[in-house]
This record gives sequence, C-alpha cells and structure tokens, in this order.
Amino acid sequence: MKAYIVGVGMTKFEKPETRDWQYWDMVREAGTAALEDAGVRYEQVEQVPVGYCFQPSTAGQRAVYELGLTGVPVCNVNNNCATGSTALMLARQFVAGGGSDCVLAVGFEKMARGSLGGGGSDGGEDFAASPVARHYGIMAAAHGFAMSPPTAQIFGNAAREHMERYGTTPAQLAAVGAKNHRHSVHNPYAQFQDPYTVAEVLAARTVHDPLTKLQCSPTSDGAAAAVVVSERFVERHGLGERAVEIAAQAMATDTGASFASGTCVDAVGTPMSRAAARQVYAASGLGPGDLDVIELHDCFSVNELLTYEALGLCGEGESGKLVESGATTYGGRWVVNPSGGLISKGHPLGATGIAQAAELTWQLRGEAGPRQVPGARTGLAHNIGLGGAAVVTLLRRR
Amino acid sequence: MKAYIVGVGMTKFEKPETRDWQYWDMVREAGTAALEDAGVRYEQVEQVPVGYCFQPSTAGQRAVYELGLTGVPVCNVNNNCATGSTALMLARQFVAGGGSDCVLAVGFEKMARGSLGGGGSDGGEDFAASPVARHYGIMAAAHGFAMSPPTAQIFGNAAREHMERYGTTPAQLAAVGAKNHRHSVHNPYAQFQDPYTVAEVLAARTVHDPLTKLQCSPTSDGAAAAVVVSERFVERHGLGERAVEIAAQAMATDTGASFASGTCVDAVGTPMSRAAARQVYAASGLGPGDLDVIELHDCFSVNELLTYEALGLCGEGESGKLVESGATTYGGRWVVNPSGGLISKGHPLGATGIAQAAELTWQLRGEAGPRQVPGARTGLAHNIGLGGAAVVTLLRRR
Repeated sequence: MKAYIVGVGMTKFEKPETRDWQYWDMVREAGTAALEDAGVRYEQVEQVPVGYCFQPSTAGQRAVYELGLTGVPVCNVNNNCATGSTALMLARQFVAGGGSDCVLAVGFEKMARGSLGGGGSDGGEDFAASPVARHYGIMAAAHGFAMSPPTAQIFGNAAREHMERYGTTPAQLAAVGAKNHRHSVHNPYAQFQDPYTVAEVLAARTVHDPLTKLQCSPTSDGAAAAVVVSERFVERHGLGERAVEIAAQAMATDTGASFASGTCVDAVGTPMSRAAARQVYAASGLGPGDLDVIELHDCFSVNELLTYEALGLCGEGESGKLVESGATTYGGRWVVNPSGGLISKGHPLGATGIAQAAELTWQLRGEAGPRQVPGARTGLAHNIGLGGAAVVTLLRRR
Repeated sequence: MKAYIVGVGMTKFEKPETRDWQYWDMVREAGTAALEDAGVRYEQVEQVPVGYCFQPSTAGQRAVYELGLTGVPVCNVNNNCATGSTALMLARQFVAGGGSDCVLAVGFEKMARGSLGGGGSDGGEDFAASPVARHYGIMAAAHGFAMSPPTAQIFGNAAREHMERYGTTPAQLAAVGAKNHRHSVHNPYAQFQDPYTVAEVLAARTVHDPLTKLQCSPTSDGAAAAVVVSERFVERHGLGERAVEIAAQAMATDTGASFASGTCVDAVGTPMSRAAARQVYAASGLGPGDLDVIELHDCFSVNELLTYEALGLCGEGESGKLVESGATTYGGRWVVNPSGGLISKGHPLGATGIAQAAELTWQLRGEAGPRQVPGARTGLAHNIGLGGAAVVTLLRRR
C-alpha cells in the first residue's frame, strides 16, 4: 500500500548550548509543528519510531510523552548518521504494510559534551569506540565537528583518492561548500546562513587536507518529525493537497566489497549508496533524469561528489566537473541540497534523515519560499551512516 | 497477513566474563542456531532488526556481518528490558505487512563493566541516568544485578505495597523464586540450574526488603535469535511442521495513569502490561483460559505476581495465593516460566524478549525435553522495560 507524508516539522538546527533546552523540548517543538502541519492530533497517532544515537534507552518515550501520554508503541532506533531515515523507513513500513494508518517518525540529537542527559557518552567517544572506527584503525577522538575528526580523515582520504584518480580539484570540492552555504542563506532552520565564495571556502582552516572547515558539517542540536499516513487516512481527512507520496525507499548495508577493495571511496560507503539508489530506481521505474530536487548526505564536500556518482547524476569521476558546471544548483538540471545540506544546515545525527524529508516535502508542495525549486515534482533523499547503512527515499507530489 | 516463527536459537546465558567472547560471537552463535533450526540460509534473510542497549550505534551491523555480508537492511532498536520483543515486533510487522517474507530478529547484551566494546556506558550508569530513573528520583547506581539496585528498590517497594494492600506474604514472593529456579534445572541455556526451597530463597541475602537475591534476575551475557517468515514462505519451503504462528502481538507504553497514581505497582509498569494483554486477547479472541504455557518478565519475583494479575490469570491481589497453589507450575493450570524465567535463566537485556519466544517455540513444537509442558498448544510471552514499554505476544501451534 502507498504511504504519504502529510506533515513535517523541525527545530532550527543550532550549535549545542545555543539554547537552554533538553532533547524532549526539541521533540515537542518539532513534533508539534509536524502534527499542526498535517492537521493531525497526537491522539490519532498509532505508533512512534524515534531515532537518536546519544541518549540512553527509552529516551524516545520521554521525548514523545511531551506530546501526550497515549500509550502507543514507541520504538527507539539508531543507525549512526542514517538514524533519522531509519525511523522514517519504519514509519513507511508500518503504514505500507497496512498495520497502521498514522505514524509519527521523530529524530533528534543533543550533541554537546556535558549537556547530554544520558549515559555519559557522546558523539566523539562513541564514534571512536565504534566498530567502524575500529575497522578503520581510528581510535582517537576530538570534538568540534558532528562527524568527529577521525571521520574527517576517512573522508579527506577519499577526497585525495578521487583527486588522484580523476583529477578532481580542491576548487571543485570547495564549490560544494560554497553552493550549500549559499543555499542556506534562505533557510531559517539552518545553523549557518552566511554565503561564502569558493575562494573563502578554500581559504578556511584545513580540517584534513583537502577538506576545509567550510566543507564539513558542524556539531548540531536539533529535532525533526514527519507524519506518515495511509491513502485511506489521506482520503478520510481530506489531506490530498498536503500529501507527498513516498514512492520508493531502500536501505543498503555494507557487503564484502566495502571491506575488500581497500579504497577510501568504498570505505566511506559509496557502494551502499549506489545499491540503495539502484533499488529505489528499480522499484519506482524512475531514474536520475526524473528528479527535480535532491537532499543528500554532504557530511563532507567529497561525499556530495561521491553521491552524485552513486545516484547516477553523472558518470564515475565526473562529479567535480558536474558541481562546477552549475548543474546542481538553481538554474541547473537539479537543485541539490536547497536546504544548505549537512554542511550549512547542520547535522544532529538522529534528526538529519527526517529533516531531509521535511525540506523535500516543502519543496514538492511549493512551500519553500525564497529557496523554492521551481516546479519541483519529484525529490530524492539520501542519508548514510558509516558502520553502516544508506537509505534512499524517493518522494513525489501526489 | 500471518507471520510465523520457523527457527529459534540462543546462547547459554552466562555471568559476564565467564566466556571470552565479544557480542558478535554471541550473535553468530545464536543467529546460526536459529537459521539452522529453520533450515534457512542467511542469503534468504531480507531484513534484520537487532536489539541491544549497551553498545554504540550500528553494533547490530557488526554483529550480523558475522553471519554474512549481504547488504540487507539492519535496524538497531532499543527499549530497555523490552528491547528483544521490540525487535521481534518489528520482524512481525515487516512480514505481516507483506514487505518481507523472511526476517531475522536478533537480540543480545554484553553487560560487564569494562568489557563493553562501546561508548563507555554500562547498565547501571545508563539506568541511573535514564529518564525513568530520574522520574523516580533515583540517581545512585551499583552493580551485580541486571536490574541495578535502584530498580530493586522500585520493585521492592511495589512488593511491600502488594503485601500491605492484599496480605501477600514473603513466602509467596519466595515461591516465585523457588519455582523458577526449580524449572531451570532442566534448561541447558539457563545461567543457574540449581533448585532452591522456599526456605532457602527466603534465607538468601536481602537485596531490598522483601526481595532476596534468589528473587532477582542476575547480570547476564547472551544472545537470542528468531527467524520470522510469511505463510507463503512456510508453504514454499515446507516449514509447516516447524512453524509457530505469532497469533497476536501488542506493545503498550505509559499513559498519564502510570505517573499520576503514585502507587509503586503502577510505577513498575503494571498498567502497560494490562493494556498490552488486553489488546492481544481482543485481537486473537483468546483469553487467559486458553493459554498453556507462559514466559513472563520476572525481573523480580514481585513482577511475576503483578503480571499474573495484569494478564488476568487471577483477580487483583490474588497472585500470591495463585503461585502458592501450584497453578503456575507443572501439573497446574499453566506453566509459567518453564525456562527458569529471568530470575534463573538470566537477563541479557536485548536478548530476553527473543529468548522468551525461543522457549515458547520449543514448548509449542514439543521439543522442550525434560521441561516440556505436556500438550502445549498456545503460549504467551510478556516482556517489559521501565521507561517504558510492555510487549505481549501470543504464539500458537500451526
């Protein structure tokens, strides 16, 4: 059966400790916004999958209790940086299977050291101790980036590999940062809203050569929520005008190839992205040429380039030229990351995948204001977590 | 659509550090056993929900990669002590909705301090910092019990309340411990296999009056797995003889009543258990009188008594007399916790809910050996986590 997003909401993504709030405050804000956007009351919600990485078990319950104590099933999920889309995927499956007519998917993260309500763990430590970090031989950890510096090393090395193999230039990598920072100027939910030139992006502090600070996603607090409902629910409540169809969705995890090839491009999960995209195109009968707007996982500028190739927007090795050509911004073939992406909107791990769906929902409804992609009818979200999982979601106007 | 369990497996539950193993070793052992029991190859598995509480995000991937790198979706879930049944519930929903024909549900926990691969957190610390602990004003934590002593205080106080209100006696509470330890003598997967008399249970060290050590679940390492498939899959692969139907399943979470009443019996989640049981009885058309064998969440003896009442095995306040009458052991009306329950089998948080389903599957197939409940055709599993969620699952022979 078909599943539709009929309401979305999010908090502004912010540098940790900008606001004096707890994770349940974020969820109340985002969840209430999503319910109001859908015109749905919390009492109508039948299940609530909640995604987060850095709070103890059943934090999801504490968070959704803020919306109302209705006794509905709550499932706490995590999948590193793909956590939000994993929660969304559960919501879609609950609805598509006919078991539920109205599900609220929630994702949040409160990432600052010391301000965590929970188990004394935080992003950096957790990542450094995680299986994927051990796999890559990375045990050091520090702070200041949503994806802690060990991750910057992995992605930085993937960037060098791409440069050596295909002649990709530092300016092409920087063009991703410049584009996404420029897009976010019009996004009130974005952590940063300042434009930068390619020269400024290149001149920013180097995190791991060739990646500079303006090409890396920051540490962020925030939450996002989406109301996912059945066709029956759409009809019964007259929500046709608000409804965006989840036309196809797939999650891929690592296969032997991820570990066997020895390339950094494979190690950062590109084969997972490619596999998930392939499944979604096959299931929907659509291809890259049918897409208007894309929100993809630019945790680092290089990952936007790698994802262009994984999604089939261009051939292998051609992504540097693609971004430079203007094909992925306003006026080009697609608009990629109109929200500003992870680089400029921010990246609270559990919220990111649902925030991507929120941006696409606004775009496909024509509600994105000054950052509207003209005539957008079909959108694609791409969310990836090392360790790992890649989730690709195809959305289309009903 | 109907969903069936066609294969189950588990490790022996053990005191942490008894064996030199990592969590992925446990999952390989339990997962392989479940697949072999079903006669299913890992390549046939379409999704893998994985339940655990005390490892970092995507530990589920690391664990299932040990079974084979097939790239299938992995969803890491947690719900405190109801984590295992939450993973099982996802598997059932994936299959019942028609989206997947063959799903492997996995649950594990590695609970020893210092031996955790992950985020530097452990059971006691996490629980003490959790929302539910804060709700109860409990911030101290110590070790030696799966449910850390703060939890023993909550359940101990619920026991006192039951004694004051209904005249329940310490001997009736101890009878639960004696029964479950006696049952486990025949369970090779149980952490303890020693019988104790009621007098011995009463004489054991007091953890929180009136609960003694032999009425409390221990700290445990272990994993469990279950293969959940569609009717179509059962027919196609000739698994009818191995198939146990998941006839109904429900999760309830706290409502306002949990927090408003001020009673300890409500605070430990009894209203959630009652709500989930009611939903399962309504969905299946069956009642307590139709059940033969029950695996329920005896984290402490008092919770077995409270759950008798929540499941409708007896009226309110009558559970002490019920256990004393022998109605819940071999030769009685039901056999409750033939595996030894959490008290004697052990309680690795993420594994418990799936291990309950494993025991019931063996019982309903008539494969439980010396602990077989004669002629068992219908079974019920009850798994609860503070914070919180209660999952009730009704299983029946096909």
